[in-house]
This record gives sequence, C-alpha cells and structure tokens, in this order.
Amino acid sequence: MRNIKLVMEYDGTRYSGFQEQRGRDVPTIQRAIENAIQQTTGESLRIIGSGRTDAGVHALGQVANFFTESMIPAEKFAPAMNSRLPRDIAIIRAEEVDRKFHARFSALRKTYRYTWFTREIRSPFWQHYAYQVYGELDIQAMQEAADLFIGEHDFTAFKAAQTDVVNCVRCIYNSEITADGPLIHFTVEGNGFLRHMIRIMAGTLTEVGMGKREAKSIEHALNSRQRSDAGITAPAHGLTLLHVTYEMS
Amino acid sequence: MRNIKLVMEYDGTRYSGFQEQRGRDVPTIQRAIENAIQQTTGESLRIIGSGRTDAGVHALGQVANFFTESMIPAEKFAPAMNSRLPRDIAIIRAEEVDRKFHARFSALRKTYRYTWFTREIRSPFWQHYAYQVYGELDIQAMQEAADLFIGEHDFTAFKAAQTDVVNCVRCIYNSEITADGPLIHFTVEGNGFLRHMIRIMAGTLTEVGMGKREAKSIEHALNSRQRSDAGITAPAHGLTLLHVTYEMS
Repeated sequence: MRNIKLVMEYDGTRYSGFQEQRGRDVPTIQRAIENAIQQTTGESLRIIGSGRTDAGVHALGQVANFFTESMIPAEKFAPAMNSRLPRDIAIIRAEEVDRKFHARFSALRKTYRYTWFTREIRSPFWQHYAYQVYGELDIQAMQEAADLFIGEHDFTAFKAAQTDVVNCVRCIYNSEITADGPLIHFTVEGNGFLRHMIRIMAGTLTEVGMGKREAKSIEHALNSRQRSDAGITAPAHGLTLLHVTYEMS
Repeated sequence: MRNIKLVMEYDGTRYSGFQEQRGRDVPTIQRAIENAIQQTTGESLRIIGSGRTDAGVHALGQVANFFTESMIPAEKFAPAMNSRLPRDIAIIRAEEVDRKFHARFSALRKTYRYTWFTREIRSPFWQHYAYQVYGELDIQAMQEAADLFIGEHDFTAFKAAQTDVVNCVRCIYNSEITADGPLIHFTVEGNGFLRHMIRIMAGTLTEVGMGKREAKSIEHALNSRQRSDAGITAPAHGLTLLHVTYEMS
C-alpha cells in the first residue's frame, strides 16, 4: 500500500464543507476528491483530511492523504484527478509519502486567512470571498487586538458553543492584520484551531475594527473563558485555509 | 427630465453580455439595471450604455445614463438600486449630469484589462476571471508586441469577421503588460474598440507569449488588414472594462 499526500485548492462556495457528513447527502470536497480517485484508480476509498473546513470556507493549501494499491506514479495523480474534478477544486501537488504520514495527526501548524471587503457599496467580485463591511475598519486597533492572540491561551471563549473538546489550549505563532486597498486580511498561524475559532476571532476583530469593543477585551475573553465575552462568529466565506505545515514536507 | 449617470461593477459570468438582445430572452446586465430602476422610480425606461460587453466580460467601471422624471436625489440611486440588484451587479456611483451627456457618444477613451492565469494546474478561483494558460508566457515578447498597438492604426485585422463597421481606424494611447505572480495583465486604453478587438489583441499576444508567433507579426497584421494575420480570439471571461473617460467627470 502506498501513501499519497495531496495538496489542494478549492472554492468552497458550492460545498457543505470539506468533510463528508454521516447520513446527509450534501456536496462535500471530500466526496468530490474520493470520486476523482475512484475514477482514476478504480478504488473506492476514504481520504484523511488535515481537518474540516466549514461550508463556504475556501482553501489554497488543504492537505489530505490516502492509501492506494494503484501503481500510478505519484506525479500523475494531479493531472489525472484534475481532469475529473469539478472546476472549483484542483489538486496542486501529489506525492508519495512515508506510511506513517497522517494528514491530521502529523500536522504541526496551520495558517488561515480571514478577509474583509470594506466599502460603502458591496462588491460583486468579493461576495463569496470576503466579509462585506460597509465602512472603514480601524486597522491599528485590530492589530493591537490580534497581537493579544499570540502565545499559548485557553480559547474556550472562542469556540462554537456545541463543541465538546476537553483541552482548549492552543498556541498562536502569528496573528497579523494587513490592508490591500479595500481588502483587510487577518493571517493567523497556530498549532491547531477549535471549531469556529478563527471565525470568532475574526468576528471579535470586526467589532474592534468598528469601534464597538476595546482591543484589550480580547484578554478578558481569554481569561473568563466565556463565549459571551468574545464577539460574533464572522461568516464562513471570508475564510481561507492557506497552508498546513508538517515536519517533513 | 433629469439625466442620471451610473458607474457600475459587474461579474459578467451569469450574463449574456451588457446589452439587451432583440427577440432573445436571455439575462443581460442592461435588463437587470432597468428592472432595478423600475423598482426604484416606477419608470419603465431604457438606459444608454457606454458600449456593449460580450457575454462573460466583467466591469469595474462601466457607465450608463438614463432620463428620469423621478425627483429622487442622485446620491440615493446607488443604495436604492443596489438593494434591488442581483449580488453580481453593483452601482458604485450615481450623479446628475448635463442633459447633453450620452454614455456612448460622450465617451472619449476606454480602458480595458485582459488577464491570464499561468500555471501548469488550473485555478479554482480564476476560472471565470482569467484565461488559463498551462505554462509560462514570455512577458518581454508580449510587451514588445503590445507596444506595436500604440498610436493610430487600422484595426481591420483585429475585428470580428461579421462586423460591418466602415471606419476601423482607432487610436491606442496605452498598451501595457504587467505580471502579478501567476497573473499576467494586458491593460489597454484607446479612443474606441471594434467588436472583439481586445480579445483578438489578447489572443495574438497569447501566441506571442507562447512563442508561437513573433512580436513584429502585429505590424504585418495591422498593415495587411487580414483577420487571418492576427491571432485567435481570446476567451471573453479574461476581459474586464476598467474605466470610461469623459470630458467632464
């Protein structure tokens, strides 16, 4: 059995998230990828993703792996699968990796980007790729707030209420706000993220940028561990998974 | 009667072009705009566009005007119409202008951008906004070719075969190639463009960039005035109307 690692891009607009949902017949990235593998190797198998992405979330560097009996050279997987995949998903790299490689458990860090489009008038082009804010955001206050995420913290206040994860301590290595004309980006790198964590971080930053809360309120939310002390859950379509880092890659 | 000038953005993907097509019941930008005006002022009227854009062509600065009996303040048109327009069209500015202003006849210059996405693997994000080329383009050769468009020329070789325009002389003021990672842009400004002219210019530049024709073959095509001496018609979805220039604006 060979272990194949895939790096992929997708426009998540049409999909109900990355992961196949038990008992629900909805379009997922996972299903599209597994269908393309079946058409390529003839095998009906399951891929292992680095993690879920919510419905509407995009990726420029999602990673998955799967075990195959096929002898197709690794470099042939991308062109063969891309010719079978819908146009909104592309395999940008495929390689044979060690049998121990596991897209989820071997992941060391992940980098995401959250994007706002700030203008009085909505954009026809960014409607599916950025969170529309009708007015300006205070970038400096947002960066001040984003800085407070850096380091090891208990992110209980920044997770979806229905999640029952025991350990909510995560380490954030990088947390940065950049502006590019009407687009504002929040780039965040961490050793892992709880369900909706980045969207709640982004929602809280939105409120800071709008002047509705103080930057230092982040500290209070981290300490209180109360979901109600953090901000709204920003919409999924502003979020893009940029990169997953592994020890060897 | 007041004359209202609209500046608009649209994602042309879902539309059969800007202009309403006689006897064909297809979605057009013009129809969407006229419907939004009707819902705003109650008037059933016709707008005058600066010119057509083909099916799939986008705009960041298309201009139109219309005459209205409505007393709605000019600055209210954009918000009122945007709340009624589909999400892929937006009015970014509306203003009352002189009665003599005509979006088509008063236009002095137009600026368009044609975009290529160059990578061995197709992009899920640029599929509707750039012409996918599987490999690199020779930017320097393309700029050399693009320079030859500048000035006043007879563009008979660069127009759709079925067009029966008498005077095919147009003046090009700016013709520039720029690179932004895997994206290559051709920005061109002229006093007017024939049907398919920019797409044929872009198709010819594509062939130059791929090394399939010499840059100086442009000169030959301009002189021979034979359509067969120019290159292919590049796909519509790579094209965006950026700006229309008027004497007063």
